[in-house]
Amino acid sequence: MSKGRMEAFSDGVIAILITIMVLELKIPHGADWEALRSVLPVFLTYVLSFIYLGIYWNNHHHMLYATERIDGRVLWANMHLLFWLSLIPFVTGWMGENHFAPLPTAVYGVVMLLAAIAYYILQSLIVAQHGANSKLRAAIGKDIKGKISPLLYLAAIPLAFVNQWISDAIYVLVALIWLIPDRRIEVKVKNG
Amino acid sequence: MSKGRMEAFSDGVIAILITIMVLELKIPHGADWEALRSVLPVFLTYVLSFIYLGIYWNNHHHMLYATERIDGRVLWANMHLLFWLSLIPFVTGWMGENHFAPLPTAVYGVVMLLAAIAYYILQSLIVAQHGANSKLRAAIGKDIKGKISPLLYLAAIPLAFVNQWISDAIYVLVALIWLIPDRRIEVKVKNG
Amino acid sequence: MSKGRMEAFSDGVIAILITIMVLELKIPHGADWEALRSVLPVFLTYVLSFIYLGIYWNNHHHMLYATERIDGRVLWANMHLLFWLSLIPFVTGWMGENHFAPLPTAVYGVVMLLAAIAYYILQSLIVAQHGANSKLRAAIGKDIKGKISPLLYLAAIPLAFVNQWISDAIYVLVALIWLIPDRRIEVKVKNG
Amino acid sequence: MSKGRMEAFSDGVIAILITIMVLELKIPHGADWEALRSVLPVFLTYVLSFIYLGIYWNNHHHMLYATERIDGRVLWANMHLLFWLSLIPFVTGWMGENHFAPLPTAVYGVVMLLAAIAYYILQSLIVAQHGANSKLRAAIGKDIKGKISPLLYLAAIPLAFVNQWISDAIYVLVALIWLIPDRRIEVKVKNG
Repeated sequence: MSKGRMEAFSDGVIAILITIMVLELKIPHGADWEALRSVLPVFLTYVLSFIYLGIYWNNHHHMLYATERIDGRVLWANMHLLFWLSLIPFVTGWMGENHFAPLPTAVYGVVMLLAAIAYYILQSLIVAQHGANSKLRAAIGKDIKGKISPLLYLAAIPLAFVNQWISDAIYVLVALIWLIPDRRIEVKVKNG
Repeated sequence: MSKGRMEAFSDGVIAILITIMVLELKIPHGADWEALRSVLPVFLTYVLSFIYLGIYWNNHHHMLYATERIDGRVLWANMHLLFWLSLIPFVTGWMGENHFAPLPTAVYGVVMLLAAIAYYILQSLIVAQHGANSKLRAAIGKDIKGKISPLLYLAAIPLAFVNQWISDAIYVLVALIWLIPDRRIEVKVKNG
Repeated sequence: MSKGRMEAFSDGVIAILITIMVLELKIPHGADWEALRSVLPVFLTYVLSFIYLGIYWNNHHHMLYATERIDGRVLWANMHLLFWLSLIPFVTGWMGENHFAPLPTAVYGVVMLLAAIAYYILQSLIVAQHGANSKLRAAIGKDIKGKISPLLYLAAIPLAFVNQWISDAIYVLVALIWLIPDRRIEVKVKNG
Repeated sequence: MSKGRMEAFSDGVIAILITIMVLELKIPHGADWEALRSVLPVFLTYVLSFIYLGIYWNNHHHMLYATERIDGRVLWANMHLLFWLSLIPFVTGWMGENHFAPLPTAVYGVVMLLAAIAYYILQSLIVAQHGANSKLRAAIGKDIKGKISPLLYLAAIPLAFVNQWISDAIYVLVALIWLIPDRRIEVKVKNG
């Protein structure tokens, strides 16, 4: 089965999600600095979620680039990932509009955790099809980032009810972990 | 005529539909559990419709994969299918916001029935072009799922006015029928 | 210059337009027949505009299929067409919500007229590049539909202020003219 | 790494942005000329932003056409460009709804400036990969437009607080600079 249409469909969904999120950035009624300041919390959550969706698209792109064949289970695992990603605009808007209140902050973490798990399932299914010696298996390496992120989300969820800024800091941290290139680490892992 | 652009256009429309549905998941005003609970009915209908659109995309993908050529009638039959699918966000939101009231539940079934019929017309047109011995004809087999689903929708529509939960259960049932792989059945059909 | 990305971009824009139009189909507040009836005018304009956008996509598909090369002017002529098409959701919603009042009905015709002219400019530019003996030139033929449609829109605009139903009937008529296949006419034209 | 999916993703995002902007063109309540006139400011900003996004898509198309290979940094530079472009519907709607008030007009310029810088970074990264003698380097030439535009935006931002019409005139001017073909200028530059 060809991977082309699954790539195109995923690109479409992620492109739309990243774009309709901006619709949650409601146009303020005034035209002064106060009006601009009022959209700041939603803007900050927008930036964070834009980066997250960018990371997902990037990783998805790299994973499928190294993928040679897919089957029906991979199609559904991909759809499952897209489902959790599709909730990002909702939780982004809810967290932003409520100025990072505890519950929306925790729910943001839940959606992020479930998206990370869905990505892990998708990756595992594709790797299982390609075998332990495949180019894809080698490219993933020890997948330290992929293993740390869910643990961090898992910590952020209850911490939101203690102090939501800890959770928000964790979300920013996870995004930074993925943004920073890790080639030297990967090389070490391979040479080690 | 090449099938590439019809695939790309259908992917685009289905990707957008599956994504804009999340816009019906209106951000609640509060930031407490009560606010979260208030979006639950719309969330549940969102999950159901996401799965339905996923099934349609999946089946469309498989059917066109085995398709070799299309003509103008197939293009319009495809557009006809996309029309009924495009109403899914509307009926999903209407059913969810009214907590599965009888009429919206019945109208949901009407749109599902018309989408299923549109899919059947599209499939029949493509099969007719490829002949009775084609790879596509063999892949479809007896198409038991494709024949049962419209009958179930047809039953669900009047039943919504008796007890809407019966209809909702039928919609969940149809989704499950399509999600469960039927390879053994297909093998039996082919070997029988 | 390759036509692939222009096709992909146009597919994307038309797919999004045809889909976001359904967002104008606002979910009614009640769950009874009265609520359903209240969306009927917007639904009817939605059907009409869906068919129009389907026709544009179809014709665009056929024209570009026979196109071999494009240049910067063609890219901008295409963008110009997409601009007028992008106003269709707005005029559709405005006409529907005002139950086919005269001014919205006339403005609908203005947008349709300008889209038809934009399509004609795009087609002329592509034909000019390919020469009078090209496959594309032959495929277009006398282009009777393409010449009649703007005239019909031009008549519908002032007639909306006399009786808007005449204009609405004209819009339905133009859609039907394009939907009905005209192979026999084309054959006659070629053989005549 | 293949550039295909980055092109497809960018096409998707720009197509969606150019299309959802029309959602800011809110349907007026009345059906008379007054209602139509009330949407005029938003319509004018819509036209301006549509042209800007069209220019970006066009330039992006040409740049990537001459690009042979991309890497991870290019993917993120592209995502950075898409981020600033994604804010165009927001600033367009804000400027339009406030009838070109000073602050929204200035903020429009800020987003345009940051998008122009993001485009410049993306272009520089791609050129650096391809070398000083590449086809791409030659196609860009002295890039006078690319250097003048940010300076004009930079002037327009403070001028919005003096008289916003000067700033708006500058935005129209920049759009015109890009729309007018510059082949003769380019030839002169090359021959000079």
